[in-house]
Amino acid sequence: MTSLLLRNTRPMGAAATDIAILDGRFAATGTPLPEGAEVIDCEGAILAPGLVEAHTHLDKSLLGLPWYRNEVGPRLIDKIENERAVKVSLGLHPQVQSERQALLSVSKGTTHIRSHVDVDTEHGLAGIEGVAETRARLAGIVDIEIVAFPQSGMMIRPGTAELMDAALSAGADVVGGLDPCGIDRDPKAHLDIVFALAAKHGKPVDIHLHERDALGAFSMELILERTKALGMEGLVTVSHAFCLGMADRAAAAALTEALAEARVHIITTAPASTAVPAVKELAAAGVLTGAGSDGIRDTWGPYGNADMLERAMLIGLRNNLRRDDELALAFDICTRGGAAIMALPGYGLAPGDRADAVLLTGETLAEAIVTRAPRPLVVKGGRVVARDGAALRPAP
Amino acid sequence: MTSLLLRNTRPMGAAATDIAILDGRFAATGTPLPEGAEVIDCEGAILAPGLVEAHTHLDKSLLGLPWYRNEVGPRLIDKIENERAVKVSLGLHPQVQSERQALLSVSKGTTHIRSHVDVDTEHGLAGIEGVAETRARLAGIVDIEIVAFPQSGMMIRPGTAELMDAALSAGADVVGGLDPCGIDRDPKAHLDIVFALAAKHGKPVDIHLHERDALGAFSMELILERTKALGMEGLVTVSHAFCLGMADRAAAAALTEALAEARVHIITTAPASTAVPAVKELAAAGVLTGAGSDGIRDTWGPYGNADMLERAMLIGLRNNLRRDDELALAFDICTRGGAAIMALPGYGLAPGDRADAVLLTGETLAEAIVTRAPRPLVVKGGRVVARDGAALRPAP
Ligand SMILES: [Zn+2]
Ligand SMILES: [Zn+2]
Repeated sequence: MTSLLLRNTRPMGAAATDIAILDGRFAATGTPLPEGAEVIDCEGAILAPGLVEAHTHLDKSLLGLPWYRNEVGPRLIDKIENERAVKVSLGLHPQVQSERQALLSVSKGTTHIRSHVDVDTEHGLAGIEGVAETRARLAGIVDIEIVAFPQSGMMIRPGTAELMDAALSAGADVVGGLDPCGIDRDPKAHLDIVFALAAKHGKPVDIHLHERDALGAFSMELILERTKALGMEGLVTVSHAFCLGMADRAAAAALTEALAEARVHIITTAPASTAVPAVKELAAAGVLTGAGSDGIRDTWGPYGNADMLERAMLIGLRNNLRRDDELALAFDICTRGGAAIMALPGYGLAPGDRADAVLLTGETLAEAIVTRAPRPLVVKGGRVVARDGAALRPAP
Repeated sequence: MTSLLLRNTRPMGAAATDIAILDGRFAATGTPLPEGAEVIDCEGAILAPGLVEAHTHLDKSLLGLPWYRNEVGPRLIDKIENERAVKVSLGLHPQVQSERQALLSVSKGTTHIRSHVDVDTEHGLAGIEGVAETRARLAGIVDIEIVAFPQSGMMIRPGTAELMDAALSAGADVVGGLDPCGIDRDPKAHLDIVFALAAKHGKPVDIHLHERDALGAFSMELILERTKALGMEGLVTVSHAFCLGMADRAAAAALTEALAEARVHIITTAPASTAVPAVKELAAAGVLTGAGSDGIRDTWGPYGNADMLERAMLIGLRNNLRRDDELALAFDICTRGGAAIMALPGYGLAPGDRADAVLLTGETLAEAIVTRAPRPLVVKGGRVVARDGAALRPAP
């Protein structure tokens, strides 16, 4: 049954109305529903399209396991090597962990997830296969997009590029990449492989770029060059993009302009401890921006609860957004921005759009963000998948 | 009845034990309790001393009112003038608002609050009187310390210094101050008045200092000079102290050393959108550090829920604290740090200490911080004041 009447709900905080869902899609006002369609009293809650988790790592989470006491060393390589080892010592199962995290997301009102998934010569495609299995199991509950992600490097670990190729043949949707200077020490080779894989498989690109200042700007220029050379405008995303937070404001502005021109998108977690892209500057330049939790409760760090309303709050705190109209931008990034980057068809609340939506408690979107009350209802394709902050499907 | 047995609780996350409270204080192991003393099964929850909200503004919160659509202008003076006007137009009652916020704090496990309270020529001592009334009403539930705070300036609004003097005679505990360059444009006069009031009334000082870089460092030097000249070492606190986040690391280090030498304390909210003092640097230098929410749901901004565990998380995110031993520092700042700055007598879990404490859900303090589950129990002087995330006393 995917027909449903949402009574007394306020789309995006507007005046209360009744919203009909027919065959999994929002219906035009006045469309008659089939006899016996379920009616849900929304008690004036805000109706929004499903939250979009546009950057996370479903295969890495330690959710459901005993608390992991983090005693990892300070360097990036400490974290990468610790993680490859812990996957074995804790017996982490990518399918189980990804299902746990994905259902936590569902409970918070997320209807779409883009997950980077590790591909390396030690674990091969085990992560990809596990998350793909979760994707199949959770079909109709949450949509999962898989990015093949060379977390341990490609040039420094021969054989990884071939595994990336295999991952894309096996169903990964997006080509990932990672700090082409910082990790692989060979930016040309790393990016040439990433873009060659994208061209071969006809898939978009999403590259983790933590490199800062002039170094990150250099890598970003290499990404922009390849985007334009291959005619991939609109199909390339840079995640994190800390270099856009560089102190040289003129250089950051020029880079932002170049991103807009090549229609390269940005996905941010709005971390508080480092320089980051300013979301208002990106919006003003017309750069499409999405957001994600990044790792949730993993060996890299203990934070995260999969709540994209909390992410909107963190974006607001990071960017000093105080006015209601400013917080609307943070909400937009956590919904429509990620959806547009992932090119989700039929995303929205208009008649004909897919009925992937969440009820939010609050007088306005800003109040929903700052209070982050449990979501009364989450629907996916017109089906109820979570109520009162809990997913209907139990976690493994 | 202020005798109580907490069965099966883990002090600071250590092994489970039973903790007895006798006449409002923690008792030594094995102390017999009076016949009929209440026994509470803590189910292995962590026992911690009460959370300390060391910097907030109880008189300003809009809690309990309809959502306030923030459309305030971008300048500091816009926010200050808007607030003075809104207090009238919304009919804000400092007693009611402060009781609402203080009880929200209690529900989250806070047992001690330092509140700055506006003193200005438009509203006089109304704020001080209202918060003092709340303090009396909530005696035995939460301790409230009042800072007389010249939010609208002293030199630019003649008559304010006299009101500050009256506030301190009327029961304010601490002399406040505010950006002596940025607001009053006369740092010497502003700080001379603040320290003269402190000397006259024999009270400590807590100054809001948002001034950045060299300007903030200059004001901080003036504060240090007066602290030493008056022999007020240990009695002076700088709230915010953004200048310690200045890019010139050598200058920041020298200033930090000077703070340690004069035993001037720092209270931070760890905002994500601006440069801030690094909590690890302060700890390494021996500068006592506390934390607070600052304004909660007021006309300055919509954020805040009075949860000092969330503040510990925000401190962790801001300072890139990932390891369990690093998060312990964030927790320490939100408990013992604020308590030491406020010189709270008998604060802690040792036999003889006041039984002001909170139960936390989690295997470790770090897990308690990242999950921020509702607090199972809050006790104040051995009395239960909140259960399962709700204060026992209803809010007005
Ligand atoms: Zn990531
Ligand atoms: Zn303040």
